[in-house]
Order: sequence, then C-alpha cells, then structure tokens
Amino acid sequence: MELKLKELEGGITEPMGFRATGVSGGLKDGGYKDIGLLVSRKPCTTACLFTKNKVKAAPVALDISRSDNLISAIIANSGNANCLTGTTGDNDALTMADRVEELLSFEKGSVMVASTGVIGRKLIMNRVNYGIDKICTLIKTENNYKNFSNAIMTTDKKMKNAAYEFELDGKTVRIGGTAKGAGMIKPVLEAPHATMLVFLTTDALISGDMLKLALKDAVDISFNRISVDNDTSTNDSVFLMANGIAENHLIDADGDNFKIFREALTKVCQSLARMIVKDGEGASKFINITINSAATVSDAEKAARAIGDSFLVKTAIFGQNPNWGRILAALGYSDAKFDLSQLTLRINDLVIYEKGDVNKANESLAAGELLSPEISITLDLAAGKKEYFLWTSDLTCDYVKINANYLS
Amino acid sequence: MELKLKELEGGITEPMGFRATGVSGGLKDGGYKDIGLLVSRKPCTTACLFTKNKVKAAPVALDISRSDNLISAIIANSGNANCLTGTTGDNDALTMADRVEELLSFEKGSVMVASTGVIGRKLIMNRVNYGIDKICTLIKTENNYKNFSNAIMTTDKKMKNAAYEFELDGKTVRIGGTAKGAGMIKPVLEAPHATMLVFLTTDALISGDMLKLALKDAVDISFNRISVDNDTSTNDSVFLMANGIAENHLIDADGDNFKIFREALTKVCQSLARMIVKDGEGASKFINITINSAATVSDAEKAARAIGDSFLVKTAIFGQNPNWGRILAALGYSDAKFDLSQLTLRINDLVIYEKGDVNKANESLAAGELLSPEISITLDLAAGKKEYFLWTSDLTCDYVKINANYLS
Repeated sequence: MELKLKELEGGITEPMGFRATGVSGGLKDGGYKDIGLLVSRKPCTTACLFTKNKVKAAPVALDISRSDNLISAIIANSGNANCLTGTTGDNDALTMADRVEELLSFEKGSVMVASTGVIGRKLIMNRVNYGIDKICTLIKTENNYKNFSNAIMTTDKKMKNAAYEFELDGKTVRIGGTAKGAGMIKPVLEAPHATMLVFLTTDALISGDMLKLALKDAVDISFNRISVDNDTSTNDSVFLMANGIAENHLIDADGDNFKIFREALTKVCQSLARMIVKDGEGASKFINITINSAATVSDAEKAARAIGDSFLVKTAIFGQNPNWGRILAALGYSDAKFDLSQLTLRINDLVIYEKGDVNKANESLAAGELLSPEISITLDLAAGKKEYFLWTSDLTCDYVKINANYLS
Repeated sequence: MELKLKELEGGITEPMGFRATGVSGGLKDGGYKDIGLLVSRKPCTTACLFTKNKVKAAPVALDISRSDNLISAIIANSGNANCLTGTTGDNDALTMADRVEELLSFEKGSVMVASTGVIGRKLIMNRVNYGIDKICTLIKTENNYKNFSNAIMTTDKKMKNAAYEFELDGKTVRIGGTAKGAGMIKPVLEAPHATMLVFLTTDALISGDMLKLALKDAVDISFNRISVDNDTSTNDSVFLMANGIAENHLIDADGDNFKIFREALTKVCQSLARMIVKDGEGASKFINITINSAATVSDAEKAARAIGDSFLVKTAIFGQNPNWGRILAALGYSDAKFDLSQLTLRINDLVIYEKGDVNKANESLAAGELLSPEISITLDLAAGKKEYFLWTSDLTCDYVKINANYLS
C-alpha cells in the first residue's frame, strides 16, 4: 500500500459532481453571506458525527433522524444556531430542508441542515426563505466553494478549505472539505467538541458502513484532538458525502483501498483541524501538546487536556512567559500517573525539566522559543509506552473581548 | 441549640493566646512584606487540609508529616512557592521550621510552613533566614494580624480577614481567620483547589478528631465551593489551630456545642471564601451559581461546575451580556440529568427560560441585572430534589494580562 496524495487548490467542489455557493439572506448585519448550499448531482452515501451535548440544536436533531438516508444536499446558515428554540425551531429546520427539496426536485428526506450562530433566538424565517430561494436559483449557474465557506463563518477570520487527490485502482479520486469554527471549540462528536461545522465531500465509491468507519477514525485523530476554549457546542456537526462518481471499485471492506481512502480523509481532516485552532478566537499561538511514555492512552489524554485547558498555561504562552511550573502543576491535578523524578518536559526542542530538576540554561532560552507562532510542549511521563497529542491555542485579551461582546 | 454570632473587627489574633505579624525578607521586590509568623502561647490541636494536586510543594509535604503533632506556630512566605524544587526545596522547608523552633524555643516538629508564589524556583535562603530572624524578634513586641495578612499576599489586591465570637457553656469563644488567593483558584483540599492559603485560629477547647470533622464540614461548603480559573494549585493549604485557652467544656463528641462551633467556623470560612472570589484575579463580578431540583448532588455539582468553569459564560458575564444560551449549552455538556422542557433558568430574580421557551420580556431586562457586581444564576433541573451551589468570578482582560505577565 502506497499513498500518493496530491494537494489541490480548492475545497468541497473538487470531487466530481458537487456544486456549492453562498448568498446573503439578511441573517447577519452588513450584507455578509449567511446561507450556503452544497449539492451533489448523485444522491450520496453519507456519514455524520454530531455533538454529544445533550442540548442539541434543531437542525442536529433533524439530521440525526435522516442519518440513514441518501443525501443530495446540505443547506447551511450562519448568524443563528437555531438552538433552544422549542418546537418552532424544529419546524423551521424542517422548512429549510423541505424548501430545498421542492425547489431542486430532490427526494423527500434527502436534505440535511446545519446552523451556527447565537443560541436561543428563533430564526427570522422570511429572511431564511428569501435566501433559500435565491441560492436554489443561483446554484444552477454558480459553483463557488469560497462563497459557501464564507457563508458559514461566524467569528472566523479566515476561510478553511482543503482538497486532495489520489488513485484507487487506477481511478482518480478526490476528497474536499471546508470547516468553520473559532470559539466554543472542544468538539465531542460522539466523541468531538465546539461550534464547529465541517463539510466533507468525495467522489469515491464506498459503502455506508466503511464511510462511517473511515470518518470515525479520521475524526478521532483530527477534530477530536483540538480544543480552543473547552466549551462543547450544541451544534457541532461533521458531514461526509460520497457520491461514487469516480467509479473506483466499491470499497465495502477493510483492505488497502480502504486504508488509502482513510489516510487521505485523515489528511483533509487534520489540515482543517489545524486551521480551526490557528483561527481560534483571539489566538496568537498554535500549541501542540504531546504526551509520551504514559501508562495508558487515557492517562496521556488526561494529561494533555489538563495542560491544554489550563487558563494559566494558556495565558503564560500568550505572554511568551516560560512559566513551566504551571505545566507541571496542571499535570499534577490531571489524574494521570507520572514519575516526577524521571519525567522530561520539553518546550520545542529544549529540555526544561528532567530527573527531578529544572535545566537552568534551557529555561532562560525558552523565552526565545516562545516568540514562535507554533509552540510544542512535550512531556515524557516515564510511566509506560502510550501517547496522545492535542492541538490548542493560547488565551488572549482578544478572546475575552470577542466573547464579552458576541451576541450575533 | 441557638447560635448568637458576634462579628469582630480583626482576624487570626482575636482568639486568646495568638500573636502574628509580618516583615519583608526581600523575597518580593519593592520591600513588600513576604514573611509572616503566627504563634500560639499554648501548643495547638491542629487540623489541616492540603491540595490534592499530585505535584505537592515542599512545605505541604513537610506539614503532612506533622499533621498529628501539636503545633505552636506557622511560618509563611510569599514570592516563592518552593514547589518543584527537589530535595533542596525539602531541606529549605525544614530549615524554615527548624529555625523558628530554635529561635522561639518551640518543641521539635511543632512548626508548620506555608509558601506561595512562583513555582520551580529555589528559595533564596539567606533572605528567608534574615526574615525569620527579624520576625522571631519582632513577634515578642508586635502583634498585628494585618501585617501577617499582608505578608502572604501575591496577586491579591485586598487583605482577607474575618473573626467571630460566640458562647459555649457560658464561656466566650472566638474563631479568627485570614486567607490569600486570587488566581490558580480551584481548591481541591482532599477535597479543595488554588494557591489558596487559609489560616484559622480558635481558643476553643476541642479534640483533634472533632476539630478535623468541623474543618472538613466547613470547608466543604466554603472553600470547596469556589472556583476562579479551574487551576488546582500545588500549595493549597488550610490550617486550623485550636489552643483551648477559652476553657469551655472539651468538645469531644457530636452534640450542640460541636454544632455551634462548626456553624461559627463555617461562617468564618464562607466569609473568607467570598472574599477570595471577589478578589479573584481581574474579577469584576461575583457569580453565585445555584442548582436546584437535581437527581443527585453529584449531578448538581457537575452542572454548577460546567457553568462556572465555562470560558463563554464567564466572558458573557464580564461583558454584561445576557447570553443565557451559553449557560444551557454548558449544562448540556455537563453530564447532569435535566429535563429541558421543564427546567427553569433565573438570572437574579428574573425567569429567563422555562417550560422549554425563553421569556422574552425578562430576557431584555436581564442586561440591566448584569450591571450589578453580584450575579446569581439559578437553575432548576426538574430532575429531583438535590442541590449545590458554587461561587465563581467572571473572566476578564485583566485576568489574561495578570497571568500573561506573572512570574513572581
């Protein structure tokens, strides 16, 4: 098995048979795009992962009820999460799907809905309907993945797109993706956390079961490994649509072709996950926390999350302040097993603490390392052989300002 | 049983037989007080609770080894936590205790040590010793609880003192206390979390077992109910010294006198706990979260902590922004059982959400309520009869600035 991945310019419309665009329906002030539509010319086998938050937005509940259907389109909006909106909200989500099905002559039950924005406000449906009417006409002549990516942004500063191409049995196959998400980011999709919305497309031919398995595996080492602010959103969703137009040999069991597909999918997911952390609300640093030599994977994860979620570690990194004691203090309350006299702490490549003592020379160099926009914190717990990594961002004044004011 | 509590001006030196003061040893820049000494003229039955963090500072380890001893004094320093300092740190903590024992002719093993400040730096012992020599002379002529309170402050803006007087069998008994702590506050003392240091004194006559029980009960509904930033410190300690000089009937079993003592102690602890939250690093609001009608106490605590620790709830309150959806989103990921169609959410006395829908009229009034420096968030989960409360603060730009710069 050999995977030759070719990175493509573009995103969700790189795989054959997909079209997408975005319009303004007036849900956001200022005429920004806030309605996005993604369609496939062939109904798609679809795998989805949704938030584990028990307060689930109306569109999430609708999509869950459709998760075994063949899906032709996803209608998305920003500016309003349609969450904690009661039965009105449920009806509104259904109306959005119904309207797209009618206007574009799709099967009943073949459209999913994704919403992001403020919680607890009912959608202004005349604006939503206006936007849907507009976009269902426009999609026939315009195919622009950037307009879709733009339409799903909330506090995001940048669009997030990725696409790769590879071969399966001599056939060229593509996977594309786009994501939004900057705050409320700690996806727990039946394992992730955030308001993170991720749309993935592929023209590969693959069975529903194998598509679900590939998505679960890819998400587990991408979107499930990021945390901006440890708040798990009510609306997190990852959609993966596969229309089979590439006409490769159907992937319906484990094997080389499945592994190749999964690896390519993981690459797309990790690219988007890194973009989300880098664009984290107010973030000035990307922090890669790696825990090695743990007794169990769960221990390694506990240590990584305690450090990655610590207000004090995150503010120290923002301050470019090598206060490594805070890292070990977070480890100390993490419940992970470790041997303080044998563990090793590194910041980037500098050993800061080992054999029960600080390395004074490297400590003074660490401040220089922290000037870099990407920081790695590596801890060897000296307690076993397991490992875990987590990507997170620093905690800044801008984060506080954005979230003190955000109500849109 | 009736408790008549009289609030006293003052703090740890209100109970008979205690003296305290503070000096500068040069551990902090600028000549600020950084060495504090608390002594009792009679050796004290002493109950202590220490951090559960597995990384424990050297003085905490020393104190734990002395927890069954009669204690005559506590020597405290700020400016350096003496944590992650290896065997040098252990020796330094012991030297501090030894030196006080010698200079003041106390029994071996009768002095405890408390340190707070930056982690991972060794104490400059010539300065510490200089300060100890100075304070052991000064304590003979100066008795000033404020100087002690000052000497233990780090990022605290205000001193925290409380004292109460009450009657037991016709004898007057007093309990006094002082605390420091503003950040790294989430005490988990074998159950609390922070760098929180709390010193409590009483002239009551009470057995060691009953003293420990009273302290555990009082801490459980005071210091264990506060969270500033969800970081559990390596140095948290609560000390309660009882010298018996009030000559009440010995409290050595449960009964009215024990209950009166415990209630008075709880009052002192709750007063100090509230002061810690109000003086939380950068805090602009005191937030009282109350969860009612939960299925279990553990559920109620999970809900309270998810809400109280949420970056998004804390920044919304800082912004005086009634984004109540964030409160219910935090509840949603808390693992607590609730009935979304029956629960009630109040901000101060305003019902914001009930019977599955927002109260629009009250929602618009909520912004006005959030101008107040004390905010209560009350959630009725409609799942049972249990309850829990938690006191926390908001998350502000000042918190980020303080912790981005703090290395002292």
